[in-house]
Order: sequence, then structure tokens, then C-alpha cells
Amino acid sequence: MSTADVDTLHEATLTGSLRRVVLGCSYDGSGFHGFAHQPGQVTVAGALLDALATVAGEPVTLTAAGRTDAGVHARTQVVHVDLPSAAVERFVVPPAPGSVFGPELPALARSLTHQTPPAVGIYRAAVAPDGFDARFSAVTRRYRYDIVTSERLDPARRATSWMVGKPLDLAAMRTASDPFLGEHDFAGFARRPKGALGPINRRVTEVSWTEVAPDHLRFEIEARAFAHQMVRSIVGALVAVGEGRIRACDVVDLLRRAVRTGGPTLAPPGGLTLIAVGYPPHLGGRWA
Amino acid sequence: MSTADVDTLHEATLTGSLRRVVLGCSYDGSGFHGFAHQPGQVTVAGALLDALATVAGEPVTLTAAGRTDAGVHARTQVVHVDLPSAAVERFVVPPAPGSVFGPELPALARSLTHQTPPAVGIYRAAVAPDGFDARFSAVTRRYRYDIVTSERLDPARRATSWMVGKPLDLAAMRTASDPFLGEHDFAGFARRPKGALGPINRRVTEVSWTEVAPDHLRFEIEARAFAHQMVRSIVGALVAVGEGRIRACDVVDLLRRAVRTGGPTLAPPGGLTLIAVGYPPHLGGRWA
Repeated sequence: MSTADVDTLHEATLTGSLRRVVLGCSYDGSGFHGFAHQPGQVTVAGALLDALATVAGEPVTLTAAGRTDAGVHARTQVVHVDLPSAAVERFVVPPAPGSVFGPELPALARSLTHQTPPAVGIYRAAVAPDGFDARFSAVTRRYRYDIVTSERLDPARRATSWMVGKPLDLAAMRTASDPFLGEHDFAGFARRPKGALGPINRRVTEVSWTEVAPDHLRFEIEARAFAHQMVRSIVGALVAVGEGRIRACDVVDLLRRAVRTGGPTLAPPGGLTLIAVGYPPHLGGRWA
Repeated sequence: MSTADVDTLHEATLTGSLRRVVLGCSYDGSGFHGFAHQPGQVTVAGALLDALATVAGEPVTLTAAGRTDAGVHARTQVVHVDLPSAAVERFVVPPAPGSVFGPELPALARSLTHQTPPAVGIYRAAVAPDGFDARFSAVTRRYRYDIVTSERLDPARRATSWMVGKPLDLAAMRTASDPFLGEHDFAGFARRPKGALGPINRRVTEVSWTEVAPDHLRFEIEARAFAHQMVRSIVGALVAVGEGRIRACDVVDLLRRAVRTGGPTLAPPGGLTLIAVGYPPHLGGRWA
């Protein structure tokens, strides 16, 4: 094997020729079959991967903080992708003083926004801090769920709200929310992965209800991680309380029983938005 | 011919067997090829006509206050339809005291909302006042145009706003809006119907800009009637002023010249919403 052959091999396989890039993304999930890439389906990841492959000159893979379901939105989604150094370097501008991030790549963010559908925007691109992983480094995720109670359809709020069309008892929903705080087995409020057994333990660190307008209620919930369909299951139960169909203590029972059968309806995906992702300070802190 | 035969004929052909019903509708126009019915296209009127035909037991036609374009929304759209009396009577509840409307038909509104896609809602149905025509009786139409200036995509505002993605000079846009007030030939700010000649005179009675949030500007405009694409042409010109691409006096020139060629870009349809329709008091007054 000649020296030239070794060098070529080296260039092609060494991770040194790749740079990890972190992207801040927002999307209106209405028209997508969720975030995660599925061949033959219109997905957010699929749109990003097409644009990134054009930039990289080769197929790439990506990793996201939250794999949002079909119809769910994100105001703040964090993604990482490993791109060839040469593809990254032409976008580089120096990092802000004191930043843990490598160089910022605003022209890359603009280029990706331009190449993806209008429902997807990339508002930040930067070389990732050493050791950063968009999914495994994340220590908090925060979701918002918007509910419009007026009977009349409001086109300005329809795409990102559950239009329940009747008044809800906010005080009762607040009472019923508190038991979710802390660590629990959320098996009664999550869709179990096929074949998985055992408890689905998650620690909820914050829940809140805000009256954005007299006919517009907003639920926010934060945890290190969420199980599949967990926020929509919780909101479904809380709205059932708000309608008077079940009592707050029924919600506590459902949580304690940790079995999903017979639980209340899943809230529709359109009301749900991923709004913040937190990382340790040396990995970039909070994205919101 | 027996008396029975005459009576049957009478029932089947006399307009007395029809009741004119007025509907208040809202819709998110994103997924529709506009309001007006076009065979083979997904339209708001098509969705309403399908539901109304089920109620009537026969095909019907409808008339709307504003024929919104593809992608344009309505918070307040007023429609009339003539339905067989028998189909109407099963929905009747008495009118409110002092109302010029005939009986209210809340169950009809609910039934139609249930039968149309989730992006369409019918918030009111009532027997129309005598002489009422949703289109020809209307004396004012009011449209809103929402603009989001932040560079970052906000899923909650995307469906009903123009995401211009950069700051705009609001003071300059206000200055440039005033010349549109009053009666003008809007030939420079409208799409001329095929084969039509002569001036396109319209009287604008109100224009306003509101800063809903630091990154959210709202334009409202009211007139007896609008020409095709008139609001989007005006907003396109005003945003060009806000970006500094043209001056307020250029807008005045465009208006005076009354020729459409070389005019500024049409604002995209998604930012536009029909928000109010006014009728004379004896025909029901203002819907908003």
C-alpha cells in the first residue's frame, strides 16, 4: 500500500474530516408525518436530510432532541449532523466571545431554510461544542399545549391549538395537574414501545396552566425526557377533568394504576409544540 | 287535474317552499383552492355545498359576501343558501327578541360544522331577513393582513401570517397607507377580470396598522367592496415601502397611474383574513 493510498483512506474515514454541526429548527408540523425520517413519507427530518445532503455532497444522518409525532410542531427543536469539514468551512463566521459553541454558521442556516419547505425554518447553525449530542446530552425538554375553548373556529389559532369548542374548568385542571409533578411510572400515560415491559419512569419538573385569553388556555410541562404520547395523554386526561367527565382524583388513580387501558382520550397532535430543550452549560445551555 | 295534483305541484315549485338561510362561517383557507366552488378542486364552498346538499336532500347553490382566493382565511364569512322549508323547520328555535332575523338554527350550524372538514366552522345559522342577499346586500367588507417580521419561524403564526423575516419601517408604511383612503381607480392594485376594460373604482373607508407584538404587524382595511387581489396588492406595495425598496410617494404614483404593470409583488394569500361583513341594520347589521 503506498503512502498516497494510506492518506486517501485516512481522509475518507477519519472523524477529523467531519465537523459536528448543531441546528436550531422550528416547524409547523401540520403537513408532516412527524419528525422522524420514514422513507416514502413527508417528514421534517426527510426535508432537513435532503437539504443537508445537498450541502454535504453526500447522504447524511441526523439526531434530534425530540422525535415529535405526526402533526406536532416545534418552536425549538435541536438537531445535530456530522458534515464534511470542507462543506462547513465555507459557512464559518467567528463564534461570539465566551461562547462554548464553535464558529457560527448563519449562512448555512439561511441556505437550509431556503432549501426546506416554508413550514420548516432553521434559525441557527453552529459548530457543536465537543462531546455534544442533540439527543443524549439534553437534560430538559419543554412542551406547550394550546387549547381554544370558543365554539367559533378561529383560523389564526386552529393550526396549533386543540379547538375543544366549550368552556373548561381551569381550576379543576390545575388541581389535576399537580400529581404529575415528580417521578412516576407513566405507563398509564404513554404508548409502550412494541415488546417493551416494565415501568416507564419519568420525572416531571414543572407543570403550569396559563390563560392566554379568556378562550385560550395553555399547558406547559417540562421533564428530562418524555415517553411516547405522554404529553398528549396527560392533556387528554386534564381536559376530561376540565369538562367534568372525570374528577381530579380519577387522574391520580390512573397514574397510580400505571396501566393504559381505559384511559381518557389522547389530545390531538396539532395543539402540541416543543418549545425548549436544555443542555448542560458547557454543552450550550438552554435553547428556547 | 285533481285538487290534490295541483297542491302537489304547488308545493314542489313555489318559492314559498324554500327558506333563505344565512350562515356565519370561519375557515383556515390553507388547504383550500379558495372559497368559490370549482368542480374537481377542494374549495370551501364545495365543502359547504356537500354538507348543505345532505341537509336539503338535493343539490343547492350558495352565495357569499366575499369570494376569498386560494389560501386566504375567514374569521367572518357570510353565506346565504335557499333550503327546502321542511329541511329548515326541524332546526328552528325562536329568534331573539327584537331581532330582524327569522328563527335561529343552532342545530343546523352544529350539523354543518360536523359535516365539513375541521378547517371549516359554521358558528351561526338563521333564517335570513326578507330581501337579504349575502353578496349584494353587503355594504362593507373588512380584511386583516398579518405580518411577522422575526427571522425565526413561529409555527403558531405561520398559517395566517406573511413571515417576511426582517424588520419593517412601520412609520413609513403608515404614511404610505393613507393615500389609499377614499375613492380611487384601483386598476394599478387589482387583477382585472379577463376582457374587462375601464377604471376599477372602489372607495376605501378605513386603513390602519397595529403593532400586535414587536415582531407582529397587522394591517386592516375596510371598503364597500374590493377588487380581485386588491388587498394583497396594497400590502405588497406597503411592505416594499417598509423594506425601503420603494418610497411612499412611489405608492401614490402607482395609484395615480392606474396601470398594473411593474407594480410591486403581491403579498402571499396566507396572511389575509376576511374579518367582518356589514349589512344595513334591517338586513342584520355587522357580522364580526
